[in-house]
Amino acid sequence: MARLTGDIPGQRRFKVGMVGGGQGAYFASYHRAAMRLCNRFDIVAGAFSSDADKCREAGEALGLQPERLYLSFEDMAAAESRRSDPIEAVVIVTPNHLHFEPCRLFLRAGIPVICDKPLVNSPQEAIELASIADQANTFFALTYTYQGYPMVRDARSRIQAGELGEIRFMYVEYLLEWLAPGVSTLSKSLAWRGDPEKAGPTGVVGDIGTHAFNMLEFLCGRRCTSLNAKLTTVVPGWGLDDTCVVQLEFEGCVDGLLWASFAAPGHRNGLRFKIIGSKASIEWCQESPETLRFTPTDGAERIYRRGQSDNTAQTLNFTSLPAGNTEGYLEALAVLYADVAEALDAGAGWRTATCIPLPDIHEGVRGVVLSQACVESSQRRAWVPFPHS
Amino acid sequence: MARLTGDIPGQRRFKVGMVGGGQGAYFASYHRAAMRLCNRFDIVAGAFSSDADKCREAGEALGLQPERLYLSFEDMAAAESRRSDPIEAVVIVTPNHLHFEPCRLFLRAGIPVICDKPLVNSPQEAIELASIADQANTFFALTYTYQGYPMVRDARSRIQAGELGEIRFMYVEYLLEWLAPGVSTLSKSLAWRGDPEKAGPTGVVGDIGTHAFNMLEFLCGRRCTSLNAKLTTVVPGWGLDDTCVVQLEFEGCVDGLLWASFAAPGHRNGLRFKIIGSKASIEWCQESPETLRFTPTDGAERIYRRGQSDNTAQTLNFTSLPAGNTEGYLEALAVLYADVAEALDAGAGWRTATCIPLPDIHEGVRGVVLSQACVESSQRRAWVPFPHS
Amino acid sequence: MARLTGDIPGQRRFKVGMVGGGQGAYFASYHRAAMRLCNRFDIVAGAFSSDADKCREAGEALGLQPERLYLSFEDMAAAESRRSDPIEAVVIVTPNHLHFEPCRLFLRAGIPVICDKPLVNSPQEAIELASIADQANTFFALTYTYQGYPMVRDARSRIQAGELGEIRFMYVEYLLEWLAPGVSTLSKSLAWRGDPEKAGPTGVVGDIGTHAFNMLEFLCGRRCTSLNAKLTTVVPGWGLDDTCVVQLEFEGCVDGLLWASFAAPGHRNGLRFKIIGSKASIEWCQESPETLRFTPTDGAERIYRRGQSDNTAQTLNFTSLPAGNTEGYLEALAVLYADVAEALDAGAGWRTATCIPLPDIHEGVRGVVLSQACVESSQRRAWVPFPHS
Amino acid sequence: MARLTGDIPGQRRFKVGMVGGGQGAYFASYHRAAMRLCNRFDIVAGAFSSDADKCREAGEALGLQPERLYLSFEDMAAAESRRSDPIEAVVIVTPNHLHFEPCRLFLRAGIPVICDKPLVNSPQEAIELASIADQANTFFALTYTYQGYPMVRDARSRIQAGELGEIRFMYVEYLLEWLAPGVSTLSKSLAWRGDPEKAGPTGVVGDIGTHAFNMLEFLCGRRCTSLNAKLTTVVPGWGLDDTCVVQLEFEGCVDGLLWASFAAPGHRNGLRFKIIGSKASIEWCQESPETLRFTPTDGAERIYRRGQSDNTAQTLNFTSLPAGNTEGYLEALAVLYADVAEALDAGAGWRTATCIPLPDIHEGVRGVVLSQACVESSQRRAWVPFPHS
Repeated sequence: MARLTGDIPGQRRFKVGMVGGGQGAYFASYHRAAMRLCNRFDIVAGAFSSDADKCREAGEALGLQPERLYLSFEDMAAAESRRSDPIEAVVIVTPNHLHFEPCRLFLRAGIPVICDKPLVNSPQEAIELASIADQANTFFALTYTYQGYPMVRDARSRIQAGELGEIRFMYVEYLLEWLAPGVSTLSKSLAWRGDPEKAGPTGVVGDIGTHAFNMLEFLCGRRCTSLNAKLTTVVPGWGLDDTCVVQLEFEGCVDGLLWASFAAPGHRNGLRFKIIGSKASIEWCQESPETLRFTPTDGAERIYRRGQSDNTAQTLNFTSLPAGNTEGYLEALAVLYADVAEALDAGAGWRTATCIPLPDIHEGVRGVVLSQACVESSQRRAWVPFPHS
Repeated sequence: MARLTGDIPGQRRFKVGMVGGGQGAYFASYHRAAMRLCNRFDIVAGAFSSDADKCREAGEALGLQPERLYLSFEDMAAAESRRSDPIEAVVIVTPNHLHFEPCRLFLRAGIPVICDKPLVNSPQEAIELASIADQANTFFALTYTYQGYPMVRDARSRIQAGELGEIRFMYVEYLLEWLAPGVSTLSKSLAWRGDPEKAGPTGVVGDIGTHAFNMLEFLCGRRCTSLNAKLTTVVPGWGLDDTCVVQLEFEGCVDGLLWASFAAPGHRNGLRFKIIGSKASIEWCQESPETLRFTPTDGAERIYRRGQSDNTAQTLNFTSLPAGNTEGYLEALAVLYADVAEALDAGAGWRTATCIPLPDIHEGVRGVVLSQACVESSQRRAWVPFPHS
Repeated sequence: MARLTGDIPGQRRFKVGMVGGGQGAYFASYHRAAMRLCNRFDIVAGAFSSDADKCREAGEALGLQPERLYLSFEDMAAAESRRSDPIEAVVIVTPNHLHFEPCRLFLRAGIPVICDKPLVNSPQEAIELASIADQANTFFALTYTYQGYPMVRDARSRIQAGELGEIRFMYVEYLLEWLAPGVSTLSKSLAWRGDPEKAGPTGVVGDIGTHAFNMLEFLCGRRCTSLNAKLTTVVPGWGLDDTCVVQLEFEGCVDGLLWASFAAPGHRNGLRFKIIGSKASIEWCQESPETLRFTPTDGAERIYRRGQSDNTAQTLNFTSLPAGNTEGYLEALAVLYADVAEALDAGAGWRTATCIPLPDIHEGVRGVVLSQACVESSQRRAWVPFPHS
Repeated sequence: MARLTGDIPGQRRFKVGMVGGGQGAYFASYHRAAMRLCNRFDIVAGAFSSDADKCREAGEALGLQPERLYLSFEDMAAAESRRSDPIEAVVIVTPNHLHFEPCRLFLRAGIPVICDKPLVNSPQEAIELASIADQANTFFALTYTYQGYPMVRDARSRIQAGELGEIRFMYVEYLLEWLAPGVSTLSKSLAWRGDPEKAGPTGVVGDIGTHAFNMLEFLCGRRCTSLNAKLTTVVPGWGLDDTCVVQLEFEGCVDGLLWASFAAPGHRNGLRFKIIGSKASIEWCQESPETLRFTPTDGAERIYRRGQSDNTAQTLNFTSLPAGNTEGYLEALAVLYADVAEALDAGAGWRTATCIPLPDIHEGVRGVVLSQACVESSQRRAWVPFPHS
């Protein structure tokens, strides 16, 4: 317990560089807050922006040495490699279409990479990166934030321990509302999600469908084998899909269903899953992440709450505050960063160092392949196999 | 207001006969309780069972005259037609596969029919009944109970008045749990739902998928035009589908999604819908039927509660108790029976007598056709058009 | 099971007369609807109003014979006693200050009385009625509606069976909102509650504080021994207390707390209790009456739902619909009427005929005494003993 | 917006020393995590423990220079005052009975103090500290954590802006469960709360009753003028009160009610308030801190959610993540620390620097005085005036 609030003597700290994440890149700021919470990382270098003023401004806000501010990730890689105290890992928080180049460079250099999802926009690029990473067993973590919630992990433990009986159906929805008012008033930080050049071949599928898809595979430990998707655009003027329904078939004859949208009023960050077993169902919602609803057939619902003694044994490893003092989104991301630190501690043995497997580059590949398969299925109005990765 | 508790002088009462509904037919007992609540009907005759003892027992419990207990619906039709005080309507609560014959007989005789859903098991039979009913404009109501909930009607009013903006997506789920423990322990009153001879060509689709499908059409006033269904059997030994996912396309380029199951632990009677518009979403759940969740983009959720002054004007017509004193399932069915009485009051003008259209025989036909279309789509793993009705 | 929907052959029906309850007396209409649901009573006579037109109108709406409509309860008592098919019980639903006379008359005549709460307005009258009733063991039931909810009874069973461990504290609140907007717009059916001539010595205490107080004694089977009340009037122009806080001490050194108000916006009919034991707490709310929240120390909350197999054995006796098909306020009142019928079936043995004791005249006395004690405590700003009854 | 995740260039950072908070002092670890999140403070010195090993261990975990680890707060005060880069504020997180001495020393030295609540155990000490602080206008903040929740501040804004109409009643409960299982199994970090030497004259009142009391005064901006308390001990063997009910009277003829307990199973950290106005009520619960329930008379409930555009203008200043990405307990404490930093930025003008007044030493005095008044009232079973402070 007390993972984020523990202040444990002797824990190693890691020096990291950040690629992307200048002022206004709000998601990068969450990564930084989570790293502070986690308390295992020091940001010492940054290629925050190719604009010199912006880069300097971001560096100053973080108190970095001016000499470790770079206008490109290539410069950062080169300069840091010459230092006696170089960065030990890199955090990549650029827009999606700018993930590939820095990932490739740092993986080739054998420097551990922590990258925002989705990995990249094309399956070819994804597979190339996976190949590079695998050759040298280089550390790679994709920040599937929602995997960090203790009660998501509690659900996973219960599912995989058979508490639901046999798994019979898996449902996930991921609903957002920001696009509902229309394209005319979008901020730049949202508008690029409708531009195929930057967002890739899909809109809602790649951006949040991947989270939802990953969640099902994470929870049940089974791979999707085929799918039947319908991608639609319900908001006039939007350049990609903003809504999708995907029927899924998993290994072991289990079906699933995924529904995602950017245009569902009333849903602030509405990731929700319901897993149905032969004995019980389990349900979790990102907007109330501290509890898990477990409902057996013909018996009282149980509301499990993070931090109580009836959490699964594993769950208590990931929780910092006692039940009742709520943890939230930043804590979930910090749990993931604590996992990363634990894995980095293990060096070459990083893959098996954490009790829950880190979302690695192969999970990243699956997310990219998902988009491709959904587009194909939707265009053909037919079931398609899920490509191996 | 005060529809079920009003005791209004001068309201006409209707004499009805019941077909089916002997002891143990629990659903028939709900119809009788709802009729008592509604206070517009007197059950005066019954063909409760072809077993003389059972029929007499049911008649005694209801205090009927022995001479008006019949061993067949044919006897009832013949004998009642010779009386000076004959039944004015018939309520048919036999098992699904025994709806067709009595419906046909009473419709041909021009006697108003109130029939449990689904109408019948085959599209041919459904269309034949519709044709008979239409020829003489004979009253026919299908008891889609869930249409009777005031807050469902409130949702309908809000949707059709444009409070959600343009409708962009419609979701409905109907999850039950009774089959989850397996087929070995099923009571007879449940087991027949897995027998194609009695239940018809589908299991979950015909039994509850029809409710869910009808709900979407009822709420939005649009017709489904095509669908893509996957029917599965997740419970070993069950003879029909127990789980279905149906992607739906409606008039006006609106998509929908329907998920139903008999084997979802934790769902007692889990009918739930969420309708998504350009300005707000609306959500309702049968297990908490008194409230409606209305969520605009980027603003406070609103929980509308039955009986308050911000219900839509129409809604207040259907509510009997003040907000806070909850109404439930029997009250919903009683609201539907009150509608029936109102329509019967209007004689030939019955179709336009109620402010919300009664679920008529054409709704019944659509339910039957739904099963057929889902089977075809699922077998072909393809989209199919929804047949006209 | 299936108490209200059972249609059981051979059950005796009771002929009742009603005192009070002409058109507009909405609470009387709930009694009539509950009696219909319960299906054990026939209203055959009525002294609905001293206004001949109103009385006739009410009688017509109920289909009564004109000869059994009376302009006074005295007439009804006299005339019915001369009939060969007289009323077998009387239901008294007049305003509070008009309970005493008819109760006394019918009790003296040995006719079973079912009376709305509160019993009367003065302790002297209450004690006199109790004395008359006790002398001849005449049936008397006070309609404490909320005792009829199956999940209230489930809570009682769990508490008394020790599932919470030792009881350590009892909390009850009863909040309403109707007075909040002020006295200027009150309907007549509400305004009398502020008139000491009609409502008695207290406003909120007598009207709903009694319900709340009775609930605690009902749940735990302990008697209050002393109290410390503060009665206040927060709404300008209201003639009695509209808000009260009462600290309570019960037998066995258990404390309680009662808070009630007519002026709490957002509370439609907000009766809620929380009972705290050494091992668990239990909570119930009248606006969501189908569930019970049971929370042990450091473990998952359990949401018990009416109609499931983990209800206490007794609870299932009082439930009619399966879990998921909600029952509401009328069903609760009907459960109480079903108890009344069961007790009447037992004749002289009525006191022990129901598995849960009926709220009898002594409960009525305690409610009246509560008002008196609260007034005294509040005026003296001091603890006072709860008078024996 | 983005207060905790903002990374704003040019913000001044403050060097702080910590008194108390060695390994195992879990609450101190929350302060440290909140300071990291807030990102305005660097802990550079510490008198973590009088045990040299423990002090060194804590210092190492935080990466402090050995020379700035001290075995007493006196040493820290003396040594730091001689440095060129001394601490600029001190955070005091010792047990309650060890607050007085360091507070006095640092206040006398004119060093800003941030102190855990309750201030001290005796009114005399409290008043002495207040006097010292006031003389030199020395900065003093008491960490009433719950004031830091954005939605608590939203409630305060709405109340004080009149959105509820006139305030008519204020209810607060603070229920915990840790003592329910009994005294035999208590950890040391809990057991001292029952020891009058350490906890002071009250148990539950001083520990959490103060939070609840402060919350009411914070929300409504009115002072309590008199109270009527009953303190009880429901758990055998506990040395102080573990349960209290306090009736409250506030300026302007508004009443309140406070209920607190250490022995209420099912309540993890159950601080909850409900403020009742003439037009609406507002309710908040610490275990679901992201939402506020606003319920007008006879209209839809509104669920306000942190981070949406209908938050009060002020509220958005305190929020960092968008609605839907939940903030929790550490974020609330970090908001308070961000306020502290903002006030420290203002130097002598610290009292008016924050848009919501910081909980200062006078709030601390009121908390101490509350315990004294409750004891007196409970012993005398009478109302007592609330002493001025």
